Amino acid sequence: MYLTIYLYGRGKDIESHDMLRQGFTHVFLMTFNGKDEFNAFQTQPNHFEFTGVFSPVIENIVVLDFPYNLVKAPE
Amino acid sequence: MYLTIYLYGRGKDIESHDMLRQGFTHVFLMTFNGKDEFNAFQTQPNHFEFTGVFSPVIENIVVLDFPYNLVKAPE
Repeated sequence: MYLTIYLYGRGKDIESHDMLRQGFTHVFLMTFNGKDEFNAFQTQPNHFEFTGVFSPVIENIVVLDFPYNLVKAPE
Repeated sequence: MYLTIYLYGRGKDIESHDMLRQGFTHVFLMTFNGKDEFNAFQTQPNHFEFTGVFSPVIENIVVLDFPYNLVKAPE
């Protein structure tokens, strides 16, 4: 199945206080063109394959899946 | 001091598995026009005021400050 990821980016923490960072170091942010694309991603074989490679090398992860409500858009 | 937040949005988790969510429920994402604007935000009186109101009602928070590296941009 063909799948489009609308936007994907990542970043490494450089500034946060240890107390607030809580040991986390990186952010991965992925945006989809609607719920159908998101659902398709969940069952993609590539997704499972990546998880299999990625999981053993991470200590801890928090994953949130959320509709993004833009409060202030770029002008 | 005048400060510009480039982009601000938020979302509530709707899908993640309990094991991955780890008790977290909401995401707040704020983007600045460069490092100077980010630094200005850190010492803004409004920021401190908001933190004072917000902190008592949250159980746990993870904060990461990161330069955002776009891997795939919207087409």
